[in-house]
Amino acid sequence: MSQAKSEFEAYFRCTDQSCGKTYSLNEVIYTCENDGELLTVEHDLERLKKYSPQYWKDLFEARFRSQKFPYSSGVWGKREWVLPEIEDENIVTSGEGGTHLYSADRWARDLGLGGLYVKQCGISHTGSFKDLGMTVLVSQVKQMIAKGVPIRAVACASTGDTSAALASYAAKAGIPALIFLPANKVSTAQLIQPVANGAKVLALETDFDGCMQIVKEVTKEKSIYLANSMNSLRIEGQKTISVEITQQLGWEVPDWIVIPGGNLGNVSALGMGFEMMKDLGLIDRLPRILLAQAANASPLYSSYKTGFSEFNPVVAKKTLASAIQIGDPVSVKKAIRVLKKFDGVVEIATEEELSDAAAKGDRYGLYNDPHTGVALAAMLKCKEQGTIGKGQKVVVISTANGLKFTEFKVNYHEGKIMGTNTELANRIIPCKADIDSVLSILKS
Amino acid sequence: MSQAKSEFEAYFRCTDQSCGKTYSLNEVIYTCENDGELLTVEHDLERLKKYSPQYWKDLFEARFRSQKFPYSSGVWGKREWVLPEIEDENIVTSGEGGTHLYSADRWARDLGLGGLYVKQCGISHTGSFKDLGMTVLVSQVKQMIAKGVPIRAVACASTGDTSAALASYAAKAGIPALIFLPANKVSTAQLIQPVANGAKVLALETDFDGCMQIVKEVTKEKSIYLANSMNSLRIEGQKTISVEITQQLGWEVPDWIVIPGGNLGNVSALGMGFEMMKDLGLIDRLPRILLAQAANASPLYSSYKTGFSEFNPVVAKKTLASAIQIGDPVSVKKAIRVLKKFDGVVEIATEEELSDAAAKGDRYGLYNDPHTGVALAAMLKCKEQGTIGKGQKVVVISTANGLKFTEFKVNYHEGKIMGTNTELANRIIPCKADIDSVLSILKS
Repeated sequence: MSQAKSEFEAYFRCTDQSCGKTYSLNEVIYTCENDGELLTVEHDLERLKKYSPQYWKDLFEARFRSQKFPYSSGVWGKREWVLPEIEDENIVTSGEGGTHLYSADRWARDLGLGGLYVKQCGISHTGSFKDLGMTVLVSQVKQMIAKGVPIRAVACASTGDTSAALASYAAKAGIPALIFLPANKVSTAQLIQPVANGAKVLALETDFDGCMQIVKEVTKEKSIYLANSMNSLRIEGQKTISVEITQQLGWEVPDWIVIPGGNLGNVSALGMGFEMMKDLGLIDRLPRILLAQAANASPLYSSYKTGFSEFNPVVAKKTLASAIQIGDPVSVKKAIRVLKKFDGVVEIATEEELSDAAAKGDRYGLYNDPHTGVALAAMLKCKEQGTIGKGQKVVVISTANGLKFTEFKVNYHEGKIMGTNTELANRIIPCKADIDSVLSILKS
Repeated sequence: MSQAKSEFEAYFRCTDQSCGKTYSLNEVIYTCENDGELLTVEHDLERLKKYSPQYWKDLFEARFRSQKFPYSSGVWGKREWVLPEIEDENIVTSGEGGTHLYSADRWARDLGLGGLYVKQCGISHTGSFKDLGMTVLVSQVKQMIAKGVPIRAVACASTGDTSAALASYAAKAGIPALIFLPANKVSTAQLIQPVANGAKVLALETDFDGCMQIVKEVTKEKSIYLANSMNSLRIEGQKTISVEITQQLGWEVPDWIVIPGGNLGNVSALGMGFEMMKDLGLIDRLPRILLAQAANASPLYSSYKTGFSEFNPVVAKKTLASAIQIGDPVSVKKAIRVLKKFDGVVEIATEEELSDAAAKGDRYGLYNDPHTGVALAAMLKCKEQGTIGKGQKVVVISTANGLKFTEFKVNYHEGKIMGTNTELANRIIPCKADIDSVLSILKS
């Protein structure tokens, strides 16, 4: 199978349809020069359509199992749909993508579902789905540097997974990374991944929004490249998750995809992946999307309740699902468009519900982070209400590794999260070290 | 490709060559009835040899990361070499194996190696290489139960990764799990994985050896199945790592495999995998093995220095690499046999060396746990000494996920591990939230 890379083309385009100005992916630019709107990466679909759906399926299948560089990466196995003009020597990969689609078969049977799958995006190089997008961004930066664009470093404002992914991929490439975070609001433990990966980590005397202002200011200079989610290159990597899930189900579209939502870039990417597959004929229908928000940070849920006729940002309250504690999501317009197209539903989970759902899943062999807990709780509620029907096939996207959330797990099982289901809390049982004492406990 | 499962056969055999008594894998038995020696799983190689090396390579390639159940598991893709008589409906898989072979290309160049690869066994369902063996043990138990063997639960004594893997796989299968641990010696955080997965976790008023005595006592009854490493079923899953590494290198044998060693079951499994490939003609030479021990728990290193002419157990001192803090390894005989056959070398790493090597690797984009630190330190020492030569190709086995060792990481970068290389420690830089202050720090 030939790669025929130069056959295909992608570019930045202004997200405002009435403008539509385009830019090369080699430009250091994040918003439109005309109107300041965000950019999106657009592919020349006519060129991609010259190949049959079966061609793409065969190509993706052959690469999925391949050890040949760079196809051990699930993202780069779809390179023509992602960054068609990337050159092999500039690809910075840590084997992202290709994560396991965990079949929670026993749970599915108990719930009366036709299948319950958890897409394990957190079992990845830096422990979150952010790897999918960061391999694309850092590879593109490496290529720009190779072509003479004077980039000295990559930068982001972040308190968690984004900084971990950026620092790791930048370290692999040998490109300096800058991380801006609010002082005294993040523990060393939360920031230890980028610290370990040698990023320059600055703790600023401000809040997250203040950090975001500083990173925008710093990256105006163009020699420091902005890696926050307003950079749409990351979406290109993230959208491959839709192709992977479908591929892992034997090119069958599930009835439902459940995804947690905060800033809403994630659900936009999910939608784009499915739309691209449909446009190119790989699938003939779209799944329904269930977008799950923490009740404490649920502006999209309120909007959904009005039929998306209005959207009002809120001040997010504290939630255990800290990565989606966002009241004014950047990608809300894209997300609403996707949800309308995918016959979407928005559901919320309280702190108790997300904690219980995470714990319930753990009893079936998973090890869920709180964000996956939000998605699982929404799934359970929609099943209970009948929105998700008996016998349907459901895929839940797990966005991060439970190992990053030890405190959440310990607090739950020690009964420190108020209002949760005490039957799911498990305790360590103290016992004397003699066989009779042990046997009497085992009998009880 | 037909599966032809019943064509192949495996059974338990007494490890004492002069005895050699065999038992069915469906028996609840861990040591020989004749002499009390450990058992090993043996395959009927003549039957496997009826197929050509190319047949096996093609079969394994076709299955690798295939989405067809159960081949999304790297272990079950090699089922004929692992548990030939397992039935599909009894396989309990969480997508173990198929982990990424991370190319530390920039580090390899800096060291003058022909290739430096890190086999990411920790980026797996429960965050350690133990998943590879536990899928085999729990699947076999499920099959035994289905065939009417009256097993009510699985059990192990453990303070870490073994209990996490057992609890998760048992939860997936719906089989009760019992975990025995020494009271007051393990934090809730360390045990939270099996707690979350709903295992019955008993904290006994004794040390680890005392727990081991109790679990042996409890499992004498045969209705509770022993899952500790004296059960050789686990080795069958672990040995697939050798096949996977070779496969991921295009069926090319690397010059060196570096592996951390405590109880030494791991290196035994590694050796068995390579020997099986050589016996069946898939490879024509063996790699050299570098076995890495923490200096604080290094009885095998002392033995190696005598040319393995003697072996004396020691009392292991405390080490950050807690999973290999073992002075009297169970699998020492097997390990010495393997090291002799593979022209093996044993090297040690002090606490400072293992910490620095882990941190050094992190600077290249990894996120190493202390055990991988031991392996990396030994690799660096052997490269420095010339034992590992310029241009050679080296694979380092990473046994666990760095996300399980936040405290180790934080302590290192906060300078709390005495004697380490301060140049590798990275600190968070406090800064005022104005652009001039930020720019002046960035310039420095």
